[in-house]
Amino acid sequence: MNTATFENLESNVRSYCRSFPTVFTTAKNALMKDEDGKEYIDFFAGAGALNYGHNPDYIIDKLVDYLRSGGIIHSMDMYTVPKREFLDYFEEHILAPRGLRYKVQFPGPTGTNAVEAAVKLARKVKGRENVFAFMGAFHGMTMGSLALTTDLTSRQGAGQILPNVTHIPAPYMFPELDTIAYMDRLMTDDHSGVDKPAAIVVEPVQADGGIWPFDVEWLQRLRALCDKHDVLLIADDIQAGNGRSGDFFSFERAGIVPDIVTVSKSIGGCGMPLALVLLKPELDVWEPGQHTGTFRGNQLSLVAGKAGLETFVEKKIDVEVKRKAAIVEEFLRTEILPLDSRIGFRGIGLIWGVDFSAFEGDVTKKLVAACFKNGLIAERVGRNNNVLKLMPPLTIEDELLRKGLAILKKSIQEIL
Amino acid sequence: MNTATFENLESNVRSYCRSFPTVFTTAKNALMKDEDGKEYIDFFAGAGALNYGHNPDYIIDKLVDYLRSGGIIHSMDMYTVPKREFLDYFEEHILAPRGLRYKVQFPGPTGTNAVEAAVKLARKVKGRENVFAFMGAFHGMTMGSLALTTDLTSRQGAGQILPNVTHIPAPYMFPELDTIAYMDRLMTDDHSGVDKPAAIVVEPVQADGGIWPFDVEWLQRLRALCDKHDVLLIADDIQAGNGRSGDFFSFERAGIVPDIVTVSKSIGGCGMPLALVLLKPELDVWEPGQHTGTFRGNQLSLVAGKAGLETFVEKKIDVEVKRKAAIVEEFLRTEILPLDSRIGFRGIGLIWGVDFSAFEGDVTKKLVAACFKNGLIAERVGRNNNVLKLMPPLTIEDELLRKGLAILKKSIQEIL
Amino acid sequence: MNTATFENLESNVRSYCRSFPTVFTTAKNALMKDEDGKEYIDFFAGAGALNYGHNPDYIIDKLVDYLRSGGIIHSMDMYTVPKREFLDYFEEHILAPRGLRYKVQFPGPTGTNAVEAAVKLARKVKGRENVFAFMGAFHGMTMGSLALTTDLTSRQGAGQILPNVTHIPAPYMFPELDTIAYMDRLMTDDHSGVDKPAAIVVEPVQADGGIWPFDVEWLQRLRALCDKHDVLLIADDIQAGNGRSGDFFSFERAGIVPDIVTVSKSIGGCGMPLALVLLKPELDVWEPGQHTGTFRGNQLSLVAGKAGLETFVEKKIDVEVKRKAAIVEEFLRTEILPLDSRIGFRGIGLIWGVDFSAFEGDVTKKLVAACFKNGLIAERVGRNNNVLKLMPPLTIEDELLRKGLAILKKSIQEIL
Amino acid sequence: MNTATFENLESNVRSYCRSFPTVFTTAKNALMKDEDGKEYIDFFAGAGALNYGHNPDYIIDKLVDYLRSGGIIHSMDMYTVPKREFLDYFEEHILAPRGLRYKVQFPGPTGTNAVEAAVKLARKVKGRENVFAFMGAFHGMTMGSLALTTDLTSRQGAGQILPNVTHIPAPYMFPELDTIAYMDRLMTDDHSGVDKPAAIVVEPVQADGGIWPFDVEWLQRLRALCDKHDVLLIADDIQAGNGRSGDFFSFERAGIVPDIVTVSKSIGGCGMPLALVLLKPELDVWEPGQHTGTFRGNQLSLVAGKAGLETFVEKKIDVEVKRKAAIVEEFLRTEILPLDSRIGFRGIGLIWGVDFSAFEGDVTKKLVAACFKNGLIAERVGRNNNVLKLMPPLTIEDELLRKGLAILKKSIQEIL
Repeated sequence: MNTATFENLESNVRSYCRSFPTVFTTAKNALMKDEDGKEYIDFFAGAGALNYGHNPDYIIDKLVDYLRSGGIIHSMDMYTVPKREFLDYFEEHILAPRGLRYKVQFPGPTGTNAVEAAVKLARKVKGRENVFAFMGAFHGMTMGSLALTTDLTSRQGAGQILPNVTHIPAPYMFPELDTIAYMDRLMTDDHSGVDKPAAIVVEPVQADGGIWPFDVEWLQRLRALCDKHDVLLIADDIQAGNGRSGDFFSFERAGIVPDIVTVSKSIGGCGMPLALVLLKPELDVWEPGQHTGTFRGNQLSLVAGKAGLETFVEKKIDVEVKRKAAIVEEFLRTEILPLDSRIGFRGIGLIWGVDFSAFEGDVTKKLVAACFKNGLIAERVGRNNNVLKLMPPLTIEDELLRKGLAILKKSIQEIL
Repeated sequence: MNTATFENLESNVRSYCRSFPTVFTTAKNALMKDEDGKEYIDFFAGAGALNYGHNPDYIIDKLVDYLRSGGIIHSMDMYTVPKREFLDYFEEHILAPRGLRYKVQFPGPTGTNAVEAAVKLARKVKGRENVFAFMGAFHGMTMGSLALTTDLTSRQGAGQILPNVTHIPAPYMFPELDTIAYMDRLMTDDHSGVDKPAAIVVEPVQADGGIWPFDVEWLQRLRALCDKHDVLLIADDIQAGNGRSGDFFSFERAGIVPDIVTVSKSIGGCGMPLALVLLKPELDVWEPGQHTGTFRGNQLSLVAGKAGLETFVEKKIDVEVKRKAAIVEEFLRTEILPLDSRIGFRGIGLIWGVDFSAFEGDVTKKLVAACFKNGLIAERVGRNNNVLKLMPPLTIEDELLRKGLAILKKSIQEIL
Repeated sequence: MNTATFENLESNVRSYCRSFPTVFTTAKNALMKDEDGKEYIDFFAGAGALNYGHNPDYIIDKLVDYLRSGGIIHSMDMYTVPKREFLDYFEEHILAPRGLRYKVQFPGPTGTNAVEAAVKLARKVKGRENVFAFMGAFHGMTMGSLALTTDLTSRQGAGQILPNVTHIPAPYMFPELDTIAYMDRLMTDDHSGVDKPAAIVVEPVQADGGIWPFDVEWLQRLRALCDKHDVLLIADDIQAGNGRSGDFFSFERAGIVPDIVTVSKSIGGCGMPLALVLLKPELDVWEPGQHTGTFRGNQLSLVAGKAGLETFVEKKIDVEVKRKAAIVEEFLRTEILPLDSRIGFRGIGLIWGVDFSAFEGDVTKKLVAACFKNGLIAERVGRNNNVLKLMPPLTIEDELLRKGLAILKKSIQEIL
Repeated sequence: MNTATFENLESNVRSYCRSFPTVFTTAKNALMKDEDGKEYIDFFAGAGALNYGHNPDYIIDKLVDYLRSGGIIHSMDMYTVPKREFLDYFEEHILAPRGLRYKVQFPGPTGTNAVEAAVKLARKVKGRENVFAFMGAFHGMTMGSLALTTDLTSRQGAGQILPNVTHIPAPYMFPELDTIAYMDRLMTDDHSGVDKPAAIVVEPVQADGGIWPFDVEWLQRLRALCDKHDVLLIADDIQAGNGRSGDFFSFERAGIVPDIVTVSKSIGGCGMPLALVLLKPELDVWEPGQHTGTFRGNQLSLVAGKAGLETFVEKKIDVEVKRKAAIVEEFLRTEILPLDSRIGFRGIGLIWGVDFSAFEGDVTKKLVAACFKNGLIAERVGRNNNVLKLMPPLTIEDELLRKGLAILKKSIQEIL
């Protein structure tokens, strides 16, 4: 297969192509095919952008219909029919049934733009520059969100200091430390030296740090802490949202309402670029045009986005995910754990991590390669990349799910 | 027409919809239609994202074909056929004929992501934190690019300091000041107090500041200044690139080669989200994955992007633009200037500004409204928004171009 | 007494005069006298600047002799006889006997200037911008040292962000958290989000946070942690140095050697302004004049400073302090603690804190006033100023020490 | 002479001792003597700290008397007799006669502490983080004032970014640019990208940049500019104040009243460490203790400071300075300028610069050495240190002044 073009012309920054060194051609739901005709089961799902699978017929048809209708494609933030339909559907079928009242901001169509907008708004509303984020977090790669992001390689790419963020230990890091009480102390102690934040930014299921669904009780205490100190709670639901956790929003299981929510990835339906910031109406102090972006008005993304929401609702994706979660959990517990006492696992819904941090050496790199060879696409996350992330499309057929898990088992056996 | 959904559910940050308060439905080349069936000539062109017009048949067909083929839509930065074809075409038909040797980075698919990546890379390469940008510049809304951006409203949205940028007077601001000599002094004087920059970021045609094509000689001296001081030259060609200035890149007319170029907007063909960073191969010190983004791999954008490039090449858009530039220039000179001695104008290619800054009061706001009423979409830029920006699709039919200009004249007459 | 001048002409920023509202005239060792002839026992000692008492005859005579000799008073950092004698004595009688090898830098003659110089040097040597400091710390009021300082009022005076410092919980704050392991994790975890520091700055006896002598073992582990990670250890010994802790340097008891030490307050002998930065010779990468200050060459301060060192050595102040420490400790334990079960105390050498944080209301404010009325000068520190700080001159006569303690007891009884 | 102690024990940061490599012993008015008995005429005057000469009898006597009286030496910011007398005298004889109404803040006793306090207060009052300073400025070496300082070596010592300052070209740098109009534009233009400052900090006579007395009209326009934009004007009068310019304050000649004034150096009378911040009463929003410093209460400095003020008043130093200024100016014009057409000079009062920037090579370094050899102490300032600074004590005898100038002439002749 011919990859010379990429090697000659594309920047060294390219990344996933190194783990999966082939040229992909077509894809359908959880199956990807390459130029050699080889098929792969996709346990990566576009890092969460493909919750409804590759190229779902329903969404593809909507896109083609819209293209064929002459519907306007690009229109910045002017009013259009697809945007109205998206907003109405989102309000009626997602927000209202959950008792959520948010206004919707369309930032530039990437997750990092949503995080930037959320944090800018929080600082503007509260008049404070500092923000708390959690160790292990990933929130994006532009300067404002990179300041929140924790992995060393990303931070070293900044080439400058990343100010105005205090990183708080994630609750799993020092089990003896009550991290809610810790933050409470930081904001109460007149000698903490830590500036009171405008907001606390949290991924209810922390992904990049190694797949850590945060406890319901901890999330509830976090919400109460923010209330106590007049600090905004921002939920970054970019990776774990859109049904991935078993609910539409990954914070639903805690029964809490964040002040601001960032949404992206699968909100675009089939990998179309789209991002939302959801904000409580009373926080909507933006001046017109104070956060803009050329592609915040791609109508195909809105068309596909609405079709994705319809998929979620009509296929009862949340119910499906909970059912499939049990399949994965049982397989990991009964088939994978027994392979080696050093293996661990964690997860929720259809986002799971198999933890190899107790091993010496770069086990997961070999494992990703073995999976790829055996026809499974899965990537690494976590400290020193020691966790294999399992994140298939939520719509994956049970048979393929089980087949992918079997490949995983076989691959682990090969490398151990 | 029903705009209640937007008013109820969309954030106050929405902007263009306030100048053009209608709901758009379909569009074709330079014509947009709203729900009431009214047609508008588009002199805005998606802020430069629609150089090849709304919904061009050639590109739409490519998109539909790809969607129907089952081609993979989303794949992060894995290797795919559309990406290979895009890169090959871009290299062969855009870069090589211009003697340019760049590697291509795909950041998140918005202009601001491209600027963030460019500036991060410059800082990383040079090991310096400061960057020079020009007063009047617009480079984006995320924290790293917002630090470069100059307009007050945008900056006030940050809620924090925007460090590590020194703003240099644009050459038109203080005609008595040689801005190249000024920057030379800043970098030579051991008491300037201004830290040597990693890069100087310039829009060869400054748009948001009021449509200012920078002189060829000034651009050449800027290039020489960067060489003298070992500073990188970053051309932000997001708005004025893709043929807008009459060449593919807006710096071509100066015969200079920037070290890094940011490209977005019309590179997506028909308003599809896409952005590129072009970097000299020797600057490609990125580590794999050191700047990422979920939607840097939307294949529809690459399909549409390649089709857009084909359009540029095959329709000889550059030649067309130069021809149409003469039409606009002549109209402004002979039909608009005589309307009032306080009116001025500037421009190049198909990006022009009609300057009303010599007037009292908010003339341009009334003018935008009058144009809209009369069926012309055009927006304001510049200091106090005192400049009306004319930026039709490059593919606009001559008749529509003249008709739009006539509406402009009529609208000015109405408001004066 | 007439304080109108101060009220009319001096800024509201004045502080201690509010706790001790009288006009002082003369003072001798541990006794201060005011315009009304009333005497006060000094348990404050110029916040540690008067370890050898007010106006010690030996030092006063040296000053008068020097003034009468025509000796140069001011000379920036030119070479002078008093500076040579100070350096030689400091080397021979302080550094060498303790096995310490440092070069001496004279920054501007205040503690904060010393901290600024120390931290600048650390950043310059290591090429890293971040620095760790501990919650509860006080390191000064200029922007670089204020960033390390933790009390809220001081920080709110900055009017800007205070970047490049990560505050670490002091070991007493969360007993369940091993703070050395915590810092180790911050520097080891590739997802901590905390930038590796150039240095860790520590007061071996943290004063402002509420009088906390840090454990010997903890200090030793801190030293080892710095070695492990190639991070400099900076001991700020401004308040607890010069014999205050029972040794000349407050880190001696731990047997550790910091990389940089800041010294001020009593190094000026009798309250003369002087400050030193001690740095390991291999760290001396300063360029000539890269950190300057007009008054780094006040010869009276050097004359008084040497006389102070002679006092320390010849009067075996360290032995004296340890003896008197036992007196204070016993009194607090047997006479003060029994007064109320909510009272606590901590300390070392002749720096002690009586802790009233378990009380409701502003007990310590009343206590300071009662002490003042009864003829004792003592100030408050700690969280919410809830700790009374006892810090008499090290040379205080035993009788006065006991008398002062008795006044303390009586005053507590009065206010409870 | 023995300098081994310094070479072995003092940090490389030592600076002036390199230009004047001898060990000084005694000094009187404008004469310094070294260990070899050689005498030097002092045209340096402690960088402005010795305006009333070395060891003036009147001040020395006051110091000895106070020391012998048992007067309290150190007392933080408690009320004392010397402080009251200093304040009363300063008010009655300096402020009131000039129609100035200021409150006095005593920061730590160095110039940089005064600048830090001034800028902190300005930011706190105005709620803005940015501050304007001028290229060529020197304001100190701690982080907040170093951000204002412009010389490269000093800035490179910071080891971190120096945020929140915009450097404005000094008026002499680009004669074609109206710098007041430039700043006005920065604050008026909604696309300048430069954040509105809390204050503009100016040395009315810029010293370190090369001795530039700013025009009276320019200073008046600067004052008006600050009024127009609600920006505070901070005059840093540390080097050129205390009579150096021919008035007590160097801004008096312009008839303007700054909002805040920083004073240090000769305010200490005879080189005693002292610094003041003068602030308009309505700006005195400090909370008690919000900017502190241990040595802000050295009574010897206040005693010497008052004696220095008495000297200024009773000896009519301002009249004297103006008389002597004419001597210097005439000598430079008639004796120095004719030596070489490349020589230039500038100055006011008794602060003058002889400019060698038109020469190749390091002429001034040789000149300083030649002067030293010939018995004259003078230092270099300005770009590339190309300006010889002449700054004798204001009390220098006419004969010594002429003798020093003659040595200067002879030394220039030797090196040319």
